[in-house]
Amino acid sequence: MTSENTRTRLLAAARHLFALQSFAGTSLQMIADRLGVTKAAVYHHFKTRDEILEAVLEPALDEMRALIADAEAQRGFTARADRMLTGFVELTVRHRDLILLLANDPGVGNALRSSEDVADLLARPADLLARDRLDPADRVRASVALAGIATSAGSVLLTDVDDETLRATLIDTGRRILGLRRRPAH
Amino acid sequence: MTSENTRTRLLAAARHLFALQSFAGTSLQMIADRLGVTKAAVYHHFKTRDEILEAVLEPALDEMRALIADAEAQRGFTARADRMLTGFVELTVRHRDLILLLANDPGVGNALRSSEDVADLLARPADLLARDRLDPADRVRASVALAGIATSAGSVLLTDVDDETLRATLIDTGRRILGLRRRPAH
Repeated sequence: MTSENTRTRLLAAARHLFALQSFAGTSLQMIADRLGVTKAAVYHHFKTRDEILEAVLEPALDEMRALIADAEAQRGFTARADRMLTGFVELTVRHRDLILLLANDPGVGNALRSSEDVADLLARPADLLARDRLDPADRVRASVALAGIATSAGSVLLTDVDDETLRATLIDTGRRILGLRRRPAH
Repeated sequence: MTSENTRTRLLAAARHLFALQSFAGTSLQMIADRLGVTKAAVYHHFKTRDEILEAVLEPALDEMRALIADAEAQRGFTARADRMLTGFVELTVRHRDLILLLANDPGVGNALRSSEDVADLLARPADLLARDRLDPADRVRASVALAGIATSAGSVLLTDVDDETLRATLIDTGRRILGLRRRPAH
């Protein structure tokens, strides 16, 4: 088994265990046990649990960065806001399990807060969704849309709602909040 | 100074310090210092920091319980949902500082989670705001409204927005999400 392969399997095992029994409740030893490798093998790839968490989140954060860049490249408020909104819903629904983990695991919040550009990643979408970035009401609406979508995608009360219903409802609700029309067919 | 008086002043000092320097960063000794009393005097009223937090939150939780009961007593979905929505916005805006504290202080989340009926207090409003409690899309909309309102009321990005603008925008946005008309004048 290649080292790259082990790393990938490690991350999958970690994500599974974090979701199952929380970040705080998962040790490097448990991850090793699940993969049937030694703790030293885990340690070869990651020195701390925080490093594993960052690696688990990294793909989603990369998608978020790419989405923001794509939305910022659109022309006009409506195109920018609609790209940001629909992309944000798709991203949050695809990573429902991660958000559930982040929202319900205080240890994760701590680890994330100390992370580099996460605060910026959360602030820029709000700018893209506010029709007038200086208007308080527009900023409040952008905040309601983003927080409402992210929290609902990761809500323990909605785990029985299927992805497609969740996605369609969140996009429609977001457009309602922001006063965006449905995007015309191209 | 009466004992009741000390308790009230203790809670005010604790709330101030929690908001200023986080729950985790506030010790019983700091609270005593701020009031100019001994730690023993604090200890006479509260044995742990968790007990103080519960006492700080209790008035807001009581208001929430009363609001839910009032909303449930209304006749028909629209009246119930509108009472729940407007009351929830008023409550969250009035307690912005507490929500900011809850949202940004992982220690508080831990302390709260172990608390009695808090989960129930968060689930019942969602039922009141869903036109059809069994319809997934209606449940998602109720979740977006509640999470969006609570998170925005306590958002660090919106601390410069005045209470009245915040309140009016949140009520209007909530009605938009839930498809409620403005309440007719009586």
